Amino acid sequence: MKYSFSNRMTALQPSIIREILKASSGQNVIPFSAGNPAPETFPVEAIRTFTQSILENEPVAALQYGITEGYAPLRETLLRHLKTGFATGSEEDDLFIVSGAQQGIELACKVFCNEGDTIICESPSFIGSLNSFRSAGARLVGVPIEADGIDISRLEHALRTEPNVKLIYLIPSFQNPTGLTTSLEKRKAIYALAKQYGVMILEDNPYGELRFQGEDVPTIKSMDDEGMVIYVGSFSKILSAGLRVGYVLAPQEVVQKMVVAKQGEDVHTAMLPQILAYRFMTDYDYAGHISKIRNIYRRKSSLMIAGLQEHLGQTITFTYPDGGLFLWCDLPAHIPMLDYAKAAAAEGVAVVPGTAFLVEETDACHAIRLNFSTPSDEQIERGVEILGQVLKSFRS
Amino acid sequence: MKYSFSNRMTALQPSIIREILKASSGQNVIPFSAGNPAPETFPVEAIRTFTQSILENEPVAALQYGITEGYAPLRETLLRHLKTGFATGSEEDDLFIVSGAQQGIELACKVFCNEGDTIICESPSFIGSLNSFRSAGARLVGVPIEADGIDISRLEHALRTEPNVKLIYLIPSFQNPTGLTTSLEKRKAIYALAKQYGVMILEDNPYGELRFQGEDVPTIKSMDDEGMVIYVGSFSKILSAGLRVGYVLAPQEVVQKMVVAKQGEDVHTAMLPQILAYRFMTDYDYAGHISKIRNIYRRKSSLMIAGLQEHLGQTITFTYPDGGLFLWCDLPAHIPMLDYAKAAAAEGVAVVPGTAFLVEETDACHAIRLNFSTPSDEQIERGVEILGQVLKSFRS
Repeated sequence: MKYSFSNRMTALQPSIIREILKASSGQNVIPFSAGNPAPETFPVEAIRTFTQSILENEPVAALQYGITEGYAPLRETLLRHLKTGFATGSEEDDLFIVSGAQQGIELACKVFCNEGDTIICESPSFIGSLNSFRSAGARLVGVPIEADGIDISRLEHALRTEPNVKLIYLIPSFQNPTGLTTSLEKRKAIYALAKQYGVMILEDNPYGELRFQGEDVPTIKSMDDEGMVIYVGSFSKILSAGLRVGYVLAPQEVVQKMVVAKQGEDVHTAMLPQILAYRFMTDYDYAGHISKIRNIYRRKSSLMIAGLQEHLGQTITFTYPDGGLFLWCDLPAHIPMLDYAKAAAAEGVAVVPGTAFLVEETDACHAIRLNFSTPSDEQIERGVEILGQVLKSFRS
Repeated sequence: MKYSFSNRMTALQPSIIREILKASSGQNVIPFSAGNPAPETFPVEAIRTFTQSILENEPVAALQYGITEGYAPLRETLLRHLKTGFATGSEEDDLFIVSGAQQGIELACKVFCNEGDTIICESPSFIGSLNSFRSAGARLVGVPIEADGIDISRLEHALRTEPNVKLIYLIPSFQNPTGLTTSLEKRKAIYALAKQYGVMILEDNPYGELRFQGEDVPTIKSMDDEGMVIYVGSFSKILSAGLRVGYVLAPQEVVQKMVVAKQGEDVHTAMLPQILAYRFMTDYDYAGHISKIRNIYRRKSSLMIAGLQEHLGQTITFTYPDGGLFLWCDLPAHIPMLDYAKAAAAEGVAVVPGTAFLVEETDACHAIRLNFSTPSDEQIERGVEILGQVLKSFRS
């Protein structure tokens, strides 16, 4: 049988990047390429205790069908949490549970974009979201990101000139892949432009609570007096990635549409993980746990930065993230980045070529993304040293 | 803000049916309208034991990101199970895990259908699938279902005359909503037609193991020597609906596309539920458990049928399912079905108006769907009696 796939799926071609990632996914490879939370951040003991308690006291709630909107106590708790902790969410907003933030992003695209409609994103941006948009048949327009966030004049230009722009997709805090954070000034400017052009903002904030230095910047959602912002959050980096629980805060009318779309995708998010997330927020030292994770990532990022300074500091430039899981290294222009990534993999260190995160993979890019949450401290120290040696081999 | 939603989501209008269902969802209502497995079929003790063991011995596997294809031991176990129990799955097939069968159905549509492409389905059919197809912008063509399955000559006519048919969607065993099972003869005829017209079959088999009388009929997938069948199965009715674990068996090339599409939706299915499903299949008396569920539903369906015969037998006709969760009652033509459903709800019995399952909700329909898995035995007896009284009030 010769299969005739839909246009949107045919357009989604396997990437050269995947080959490099596959080649570097072995057991003994140092995983600077991943995006996994550090396993030591999982509150395993608490999850074990809560699971027992849930399966003893409310097994039917955990095992029976639930409603698409999600477990009501979790939704209420999250609404309160966002209102008190992030000054986010008005009377016009509602919140529902998704099967990981990825689903929230995909649903936003589904309810707003026809095939061929435009989504403006930071360039580079999170490959998972870009591919999700692509598989919905959306057209992507990348706007370069600067040290303090997206290039505002180019964003304005794109909003003015691109046809059928439906969403501006942003990761304002500790962006994936760059680790950069959008300044308050730029957040205000972005919101003003969205309002001016009548385009929704999709604010993806998976790392929002993982700030390990500096001061919190208000979310764009917290400025949303017109119902222009769809805010997506996640438990993946603070509780467990494998449980697949995220949430969407958005204007009620938008939530209603997204819930209908979600119903057609997976009916509802698995109940046991939802109830676990609820217990984690209410019956556990949530603030203490977040503080513990921040300490771990502060240490790991410092280790990586110190190593980069020592072994590559005179040759490359890189970002200094205030939170999150990633930093972004620019190699010198004369070094072929893909070859460098391949050579690093051959020496046992996996990094992600920056091209993976571009709207056009074929555009020039001399950067690689490094992750400091997944590798152990020893792997960070050893891996950065190897990256330095590989770089030297290219210079000679 | 005035929102401009995508065409496919704008077309998906709230249904009159929902209002009736809402009105009948109260605490004291007898739930003949649900599709929930009986809570007493959940192996709560085993789930508790397995969960403890998983969180003690492999917490990171349960809590960390997994791969999109799913937990490898579960995939292998399911492949074996389908091959030995259902003679299904060839060397050219692959299997991956989805977040409930609903996701498998949605993904099949996503990878094969452009907006406006046609899906042929039984009429009536499962509303969750129909709405999922609608929200992907597919065009639905319903072909009437008869006592032994879809009307073959009308199916052939539709395949010959409808434009851009990409999928034939079927629930061949204990269909939702009718409870009917497609005969072996018709399964062969359907497969031959699919082959002749080069159209994929989407075989949805959530109730396949819930046969409580008669003999198993081979799946259409078991005849699939050309890679024309996407087979979707689920743990929702045999382990737990709330855990949201299903699977798709399909030709490798199709699975690859569906996996890419799934990645953009939820990255992967929650890991703890997947590992639980694996333990349930390997470390538990699976066959004994299935047998227990069959006994429960045999009893409940018999109770409902006996009650219908006693209280409504001279006025209505209904299906005698050999398995599954539902039966389908045709009211006399002179009784306005929606009014009857409303009156039943007012008397405390929720039923689903048959129109909910039609491709065109406005088509004439005098049937209601009754579910016997959710209500208790007492509720079944009392509920059917009430349905009889309500019917009498319409005749007088």
